[in-house]
Order: sequence, then structure tokens, then C-alpha cells
Amino acid sequence: MATAFLGPRGTFSEEAALLHAGRAGRVEADGAEPALIAFASFPALTAAVETGLATDALLPIENSIEGAVSATLDLLIHETPLKIAAEVALPVRHFLVTAPGATLADLRIVTSHPQAFGQCRRFLERCLPEAEQVAALSTAAAVQAVAGGDDRARAAIGTARAAELYGGSILAHDIQDTRANLTRFVVLAPEDAAPTGDDKTSLAFTVRANVPGALHAVFTYLAEAGIQMTKAESRPTKGWLGEYVFLVDIEGHRTDPAVARTLERMREKCAVLQVFGSYPRFPVESLRELVDRPMPLP
Amino acid sequence: MATAFLGPRGTFSEEAALLHAGRAGRVEADGAEPALIAFASFPALTAAVETGLATDALLPIENSIEGAVSATLDLLIHETPLKIAAEVALPVRHFLVTAPGATLADLRIVTSHPQAFGQCRRFLERCLPEAEQVAALSTAAAVQAVAGGDDRARAAIGTARAAELYGGSILAHDIQDTRANLTRFVVLAPEDAAPTGDDKTSLAFTVRANVPGALHAVFTYLAEAGIQMTKAESRPTKGWLGEYVFLVDIEGHRTDPAVARTLERMREKCAVLQVFGSYPRFPVESLRELVDRPMPLP
Repeated sequence: MATAFLGPRGTFSEEAALLHAGRAGRVEADGAEPALIAFASFPALTAAVETGLATDALLPIENSIEGAVSATLDLLIHETPLKIAAEVALPVRHFLVTAPGATLADLRIVTSHPQAFGQCRRFLERCLPEAEQVAALSTAAAVQAVAGGDDRARAAIGTARAAELYGGSILAHDIQDTRANLTRFVVLAPEDAAPTGDDKTSLAFTVRANVPGALHAVFTYLAEAGIQMTKAESRPTKGWLGEYVFLVDIEGHRTDPAVARTLERMREKCAVLQVFGSYPRFPVESLRELVDRPMPLP
Repeated sequence: MATAFLGPRGTFSEEAALLHAGRAGRVEADGAEPALIAFASFPALTAAVETGLATDALLPIENSIEGAVSATLDLLIHETPLKIAAEVALPVRHFLVTAPGATLADLRIVTSHPQAFGQCRRFLERCLPEAEQVAALSTAAAVQAVAGGDDRARAAIGTARAAELYGGSILAHDIQDTRANLTRFVVLAPEDAAPTGDDKTSLAFTVRANVPGALHAVFTYLAEAGIQMTKAESRPTKGWLGEYVFLVDIEGHRTDPAVARTLERMREKCAVLQVFGSYPRFPVESLRELVDRPMPLP
């Protein structure tokens, strides 16, 4: 029972994998952390599950600021036979981490992944306007380098998890500009999940090129069945410019009679219809309170 | 009359800017090339037009393999008041460029942008299996470094335009794996274009959260008016996970009566409706022949 995630340890992916394992009730008998295995690339994650190295794999699929994670969508569309068996969502929280004992007045250098600098621009401008910004390969690598050393002039931007893993001190929390910065992850496994009564189903389809209004027909079927969409995106088919694979998430389980009937109707209008799986809906709305209010340190 | 493009010179963006200037009839009196100005970032391109440094700016908006160019979509949605006044599309063609006089047997090192290595994987595996791959900041920079030197052991992957600009020799052409690798660019200007009878209109909208089936209603209005969509994408609103801005391209000019009437109907169902502009349709289908057949050297 091990979940594969995009390493190194101390990344948001590891936090999400721990959240998933906790929700799935995977607590080791001795209270130890559930088994996670870090891999270095997205294709390695799916390969690990396909070959039995891991039970399931957690991949980021969309972020509320950056949008879709194309690499994950393309793996689902073109490469892996794995199904979506669960989802989790997590607010992106950045922490200012130092070697133990450092204070704000000591800091001369801030190191992190360049994307983290962009997401913490306001904090850096206000609180560390003179500090030099040095790029690192990942937020986890930045925290590891700073936390393990004794250079009090140096801080890293990263996760609370990385600070904990590598022994750093948290000098400031939630230094990101936008609180509504959330990432949704999907958990891929050989089979999707059984119905729970509060489920989602992820689909991808292409419409027959010669059927005018086929896309409209598909949306009409969903509307007639009263099925709400919770996501609507597109990716290129990679065949020709202007040809798309549409990816939608709908409410309900694929075995619900209304959903099953609508999928049958859609099949007539679609050149290809892939069902990526049905799985319990993650209560994203529960994160709103967490994101709207000042957050305590973990 | 100058077009701003994403530099340096010798990139696909410069090729597209030359194609646009030629189509717009901008040939200098002395036969010289039309005036182009290179900028280093997407926001610099729109700022150049907004402040009068350039007449218009050319930005990539989608690629048939990689998908949407999020940075351009987000500029249109959130930042610039500029309109789309034209579009051009271009096949991505890669060339193996050397210093004059080099032969295949001489080559030990190939340099280019890492994305170009990925797009030419099959050629490299077959024809240069022993060559070391060295990363460069852009295909143009790789070609400049190789073409200007006298190191016959070194080749670059880049555009024919870069080989011409920097004096390199083209040893092999169309070494990309996929021929249907096309990029579409939009031209942003203070005003969009007048009707020509063969136009497209680009829109972005969000639907009112409390109107069930609002997205379906929007597609119904388009279908009832017989208006075809040529693109359908989404971007996050950046407000909350699962809230999207939908971006669609439709056939017709915004001043066509059927289009104008449909836009009015859509406005009632949309929280926000942005019209990015109407402009002459680029004949993408004319590229199919170019892409399907062996291409002569330029």
C-alpha cells in the first residue's frame, strides 16, 4: 500500500499524498506515516502503478491561478490506462524558512523556485526589499539547503512540511500574495472508486467533425439530464490545429442511471469518449474557510 | 508601421511577424524587410503597442501539440485593452544548421532549446545517435553560436530564418517528428479589423454562478444562430478553484447581424462577456498541403 508522488520530499505533492493517504484511512499500525514513494517525472508515476511498484499515484491536474496541468491531461488522454480513483485539493501555502535562530534583520538572500518568488512578490517587496533572490530547482531543495546549514543571512521559501523534514525554522507563514491559490490532484489507480452518493466522473471526448452542432448536442444531453459540469477544459488532439479533446467533470457516478444513460447518448455524437473514472467528490468548499481566514501555524 | 514580436531575431515569432507584415501589404518601398521590433517578454509586447512604440504586436496563442499559450490568454483576459486585429498560422519546421562546410560525419555536438530536442527526437536517434546534446536558451541563440563559428563538430537545431540571418549552412530540413505541429499567432492592435466576408470573432465569458445551465444556454444561442465555433478553451478566473473563463472563437464578424444578435443574447446569461475582436480568418487549411508533402528548402 504505497502512493507514488512527484518528489523530492517536502513538496506540495508530498503534502497532498499525505492528505490522500489519511483520507483513505491508510495509517500504519505503529502510527508511522503512510508509505509514499517519490518519483522524478509524471510518466514515472503512472509507470510505477502500471507495473505494481505502487498502489496508486498522485498527480496535480489543475491550479486555480495557473490553470490545467497539461502533462497530466495528456497522460490520461494518450498514454495511461489507469483510472481516476480519488481527488484531493490543497491551498498553496508558502513559508519563510531559515536556519534555527535567524531573524528578519539577519537576512540578505532568499532562495526558492522562481515560481514561488512570483507568488510571494508582495511579501518580498514589503518585508525583504533589499534581499537578493537566488533561484533553486524546487522549493524543497531550497529549504533543504537553508535548513541544514548555519548561514543566518539566508532564507528559503517553501512548505511547512519541508521545514519539518529538514529541521528549519518557520519565520513567517502564508506569505503568498493570493489566498485562493489552490491545486487539485487526482489519484490514479488500476480501478476507479465505488459509488458513495457524492461522486464525480471525469470524461474526455472528441466530436465527429462532420456532425454540425455535435458539441452543442453533448451539452444539451447533460443539461436535459440535469447533470452539472464542475470542470470544462480542452486540449489539442495533436492531429491538426483547431481540433480539440474536451475534458469535462460532471456530478454523479458513472453507474448512476441518469449518468449512464447520458454517457450512452453522448457516445452517438462523439468520435471518441473516454471515461477516466468516477470517484468521491473532494469538499473544495471546506477549504474556503481555511483560505479566507488567517491560518495558524501547523 | 512596426510590428513588435518576441525576440531574439531568427525565432518562429519573427517568421510569423514577417508573414503577417507581408499579408498586410507592408513592403518597404526599397524592397527592404518590413520594420519589426524584438521585445523580451509578452507584457513588453502589449505595452509597446499601448504606448505607441509599435503599431501592433504578434503573440503566439496556441500550438497544435502543446495547446494554449496561457500567458497570451491571461494578458487578453486580465490586462490589455488591445484587440485582436489579425491571425497567422505557421508550421513549426526545424533545420539542422552548421558552420559552412561541415558534414554529418564531422558532428559530435548538437545544441538547441530543450523543447526542440524533444520535437526532433526521432531524427536525432536515427541520424545522430552518438552526438552530445547541449541546451541553449533559444533555437536562435543556438544557431547564432554555431553559424558564426568555425567549429565543424557542432550543429544547431533552429529555423531557416536564423540560418539565413547568422550565416549558417542548412544540412537537413524538416527534422521535426510531427509535421502537423502548427502554431497560431494573434496580432494585437488598438482596433480590430473591418469585415471582409470571411472573418472570425474571439470571445471570453464567465457564466453567472446562480443560473443553472447558463453555459448550455450560451452554446444553444450559438447553435440556434448556426454559428460554428472554431476554438473552445478555458482558463481559471483566478478567483476560486473550478471557476472558469471560457474562450471561444466563432465564425463571422461581430458586426454581422446574426453574430451581433447572438452576442446580445449571450450577455444576459454571462457575468462577463469580452469581445477580443473580429479579424480576417487565416486559411489554416492551406497549410495542410505544405505539412503533408516533403518541403523544398527555402
